[in-house]
Amino acid sequence: MNNAHAIILISSPDQPGLVAAVTDFINVNGGNIINLEQHVDKQENTFFMRIEWDLTNFIIPREKISDYFQTMYAKKYDMTFRLYFNDYTPRMAVFVSKMSHCLFDILARYTAGEWNVEIPLIISNHEDMRWVAERFGIEYHVLKLNKDNKDEIEAQQLALLKDKEIDFIVLARYMQILTDKFIETYPNKIINIHHSFLPAFVGAKPYHAAYERGVKIIGATSHYVTAELDAGPIIEQDITRITHRDSVENLVRKGQDLEKIVLSHAIEYHLTRRVLVYKNKTILFA
Amino acid sequence: MNNAHAIILISSPDQPGLVAAVTDFINVNGGNIINLEQHVDKQENTFFMRIEWDLTNFIIPREKISDYFQTMYAKKYDMTFRLYFNDYTPRMAVFVSKMSHCLFDILARYTAGEWNVEIPLIISNHEDMRWVAERFGIEYHVLKLNKDNKDEIEAQQLALLKDKEIDFIVLARYMQILTDKFIETYPNKIINIHHSFLPAFVGAKPYHAAYERGVKIIGATSHYVTAELDAGPIIEQDITRITHRDSVENLVRKGQDLEKIVLSHAIEYHLTRRVLVYKNKTILFA
Amino acid sequence: MNNAHAIILISSPDQPGLVAAVTDFINVNGGNIINLEQHVDKQENTFFMRIEWDLTNFIIPREKISDYFQTMYAKKYDMTFRLYFNDYTPRMAVFVSKMSHCLFDILARYTAGEWNVEIPLIISNHEDMRWVAERFGIEYHVLKLNKDNKDEIEAQQLALLKDKEIDFIVLARYMQILTDKFIETYPNKIINIHHSFLPAFVGAKPYHAAYERGVKIIGATSHYVTAELDAGPIIEQDITRITHRDSVENLVRKGQDLEKIVLSHAIEYHLTRRVLVYKNKTILFA
Amino acid sequence: MNNAHAIILISSPDQPGLVAAVTDFINVNGGNIINLEQHVDKQENTFFMRIEWDLTNFIIPREKISDYFQTMYAKKYDMTFRLYFNDYTPRMAVFVSKMSHCLFDILARYTAGEWNVEIPLIISNHEDMRWVAERFGIEYHVLKLNKDNKDEIEAQQLALLKDKEIDFIVLARYMQILTDKFIETYPNKIINIHHSFLPAFVGAKPYHAAYERGVKIIGATSHYVTAELDAGPIIEQDITRITHRDSVENLVRKGQDLEKIVLSHAIEYHLTRRVLVYKNKTILFA
Repeated sequence: MNNAHAIILISSPDQPGLVAAVTDFINVNGGNIINLEQHVDKQENTFFMRIEWDLTNFIIPREKISDYFQTMYAKKYDMTFRLYFNDYTPRMAVFVSKMSHCLFDILARYTAGEWNVEIPLIISNHEDMRWVAERFGIEYHVLKLNKDNKDEIEAQQLALLKDKEIDFIVLARYMQILTDKFIETYPNKIINIHHSFLPAFVGAKPYHAAYERGVKIIGATSHYVTAELDAGPIIEQDITRITHRDSVENLVRKGQDLEKIVLSHAIEYHLTRRVLVYKNKTILFA
Repeated sequence: MNNAHAIILISSPDQPGLVAAVTDFINVNGGNIINLEQHVDKQENTFFMRIEWDLTNFIIPREKISDYFQTMYAKKYDMTFRLYFNDYTPRMAVFVSKMSHCLFDILARYTAGEWNVEIPLIISNHEDMRWVAERFGIEYHVLKLNKDNKDEIEAQQLALLKDKEIDFIVLARYMQILTDKFIETYPNKIINIHHSFLPAFVGAKPYHAAYERGVKIIGATSHYVTAELDAGPIIEQDITRITHRDSVENLVRKGQDLEKIVLSHAIEYHLTRRVLVYKNKTILFA
Repeated sequence: MNNAHAIILISSPDQPGLVAAVTDFINVNGGNIINLEQHVDKQENTFFMRIEWDLTNFIIPREKISDYFQTMYAKKYDMTFRLYFNDYTPRMAVFVSKMSHCLFDILARYTAGEWNVEIPLIISNHEDMRWVAERFGIEYHVLKLNKDNKDEIEAQQLALLKDKEIDFIVLARYMQILTDKFIETYPNKIINIHHSFLPAFVGAKPYHAAYERGVKIIGATSHYVTAELDAGPIIEQDITRITHRDSVENLVRKGQDLEKIVLSHAIEYHLTRRVLVYKNKTILFA
Repeated sequence: MNNAHAIILISSPDQPGLVAAVTDFINVNGGNIINLEQHVDKQENTFFMRIEWDLTNFIIPREKISDYFQTMYAKKYDMTFRLYFNDYTPRMAVFVSKMSHCLFDILARYTAGEWNVEIPLIISNHEDMRWVAERFGIEYHVLKLNKDNKDEIEAQQLALLKDKEIDFIVLARYMQILTDKFIETYPNKIINIHHSFLPAFVGAKPYHAAYERGVKIIGATSHYVTAELDAGPIIEQDITRITHRDSVENLVRKGQDLEKIVLSHAIEYHLTRRVLVYKNKTILFA
């Protein structure tokens, strides 16, 4: 990752010549393709692509790439696209409640330099995780929610997010439901971890529900937050085996190991621009 | 498996001394314990046990063991129990519709001598699998169902099952719903394979539903059939990873590999008397 | 699969413009790209690509594509390539010894029409599997090996393979070592299943070795056969958990479920032209 | 875990009556069995048992249980046993080199109260992890090793371990080989994490070796340290899938997620007295 790269994520109606057009665009302008993945959803007749190229000898200045691509290609092929540069460091906020396992996993990777990310802000509705934030030297804000103040608190949260120039939000076992208005402010930019193998056990207390149902496998699911609870586009899932010997408490503990790894993987996919959302599903260029 | 073994599966209210009582029963009567597993469900305050012993020097004749145990132990400790002998060969019927993958997997294991089972009967609502049955030399009966004849057909099925002295039934992708009356005739003796990771995607077309939801993992579930559709006690589950590149047809194919293995494992657990059903869950002494 | 497709697998030294060149070739000649996957091995500085296109409006006749691509592209970019058409049905021979599980899995898929393949020939060193071959109506030849006749037997095997116009060979638990000469006749066209998680437990009796070592997970590995025993390019692997309760016999049984699925998946990757071998490793365009 | 429990781990030559004898011992003395697992290794003709009981009404004082059991049972049946009490808090030392992922995972669980353990000491051959230790308020000692001072350094390490009354040691990616003498001081009390699926890729640089071999799955293995490198009794293993797209750097990152979870699970098994070592294998009463 010594040289600057550009990454474009594209979706468009499928038609012949799309791959050739995009690769030609990069090639004739002096870019060197580092990675290309494309996918055609036959059912939707839709084309998806992720292409990453080295900017060293690219003749279009980076601030003009988006306009150029829009004018010359996107318009012609009816493409929707997003352009990223790998030398920009995204800014992430973490929302937590009382549990530490996901937060620790995130901050351990962060301080070990595993991710290209900045975490200037942790927001919670409880004091419980302040000591963790302080150990890692990150600002921790407690905004206590009750049934009457959600709008007010969310306004404060949004102000903090804006002030810190936050690009995306991670709900690291944040046990509150966000309003549609809040969610619309960060479309496909709020990553949640749900402690079940969705769509099984939607809602609260999934481990109790799994125990009651007597499943032999439990899971965890990381997804983008949308207006419908636990129904947003799934980014990553994983599972582990359980037996009749596992109490609900054991499920919670086994599940926590899933939750933290699944959430961190989802964050990584998001950070490396590998996730393309389309009609409540994700194309994961992994 | 040279010597005859007895196996008892026990459930009872939990209290001190249960393990000692049962092991003492076997020991003082000359049995040698081969295997013992017990489990206490703290939430239900219920005790479960599977114990297997060598009958070589056991002084109680096998036809009297059940009465003796009932009188001397089960009554005293309020135990429910089932007694099996490993030299009895259970008799199994297979119900199929049009798909061959589970049927082939079952018959391949059967003819390879992998299981201690007899399969004298295959029942279907279609002619499609007759050629498979014939290759393996097993009687194949087609009983065509329509919306008006279910009671009549089930009566014929039950007559066939009785005539062949069937102990338990395997629904190897049999795409019909059984009546409550039929199910009650074989309580916890009908094993189904459902082509999803239950309780997700209950009902018909789970692979289509999984595709629509955009899950990253699909599964298969084998369970005992109860009156409520796809809601019986789960015996075994397994999963496999999928990606956005997998069409519904791919999900079906990947799922079939899960289905056949999961179903065959469930059959094996059933045959080796490792499954104890309690309140719509299974204790799996595996 | 209604229309004919062409598939090219390419490897070449990496350089800018490779993707654009190949996609341009297809595009300007009227082909519609169905699927494209590329990979660059930075360490080897080598480029790999699999590209599949619809031939409906492709203006180069299929018998001239190879020459045309060689002259116009492969030479220029120092590419090694293989060209396939999805409407050709590959011809596969199966070699077995005494075990039925892999053979049954292959033949069940074959007769269910799961694969685009023809299986005109099964070769064994034992009579044991003849009944299985006969059930599926496939020629079964027994060529008994002893320590003195390997060259003679292999000559007979090669004659049979030639006579049946066999494209590739599957060793479905064939417990004999092939000579280098035999292997060289079918380079990267002999698929073996090894009953361990290679490179652990190379050679005979891997389940015994796994038991002795006390591993908690066992595996199976499908690979192309090369001169060095159990060291060829790995196509697919899978694993399952075991415990101290599993005897060697249990490992064998649990392993057989892995072996048959892993081998069948490897066959499918091979049949769908998704495997590119490079320096004893596989690029798997899956 | 409100009441005090005792746990006995037993191994002995197999013979009839062992389970009955041990359960009778607990029963007649007023103990209530909470959990019992037994296993017979037929090949070794050896019996293994883990039994846990509530001490509330147990009439033998806890300091006399060991002698009493030795005299009355162990001698008679030639049993080897270890006795534990769940209200004792084991004391654990962590050895690290330069990598933080395992250390963070351990300390996050420790500070969240997930384990019944005390960690008074971290030892390293480098300064790198001091900041982590300090964040968690744990003593950190750097003892720099070179090729001439191993005996001297180990003597200092042993003095520190003794001073802190350490019960067992965790090598959390400690990249040094311990002497036999050191290992003998803590038999089956040093837990290592090896970054491969043992016995594949023993020794240094297993991820490079895995990359070279082209495996499709990588793993991690936690084991007790014995004199032979990477060959001690395996406690836990886990794996993850990789593809040709994964560089060595990716294998390292994917592997780290395995390593930390596998190591933490092994620590938990050890802490809850679920591991019985026998002839270089573990019986895992999980």
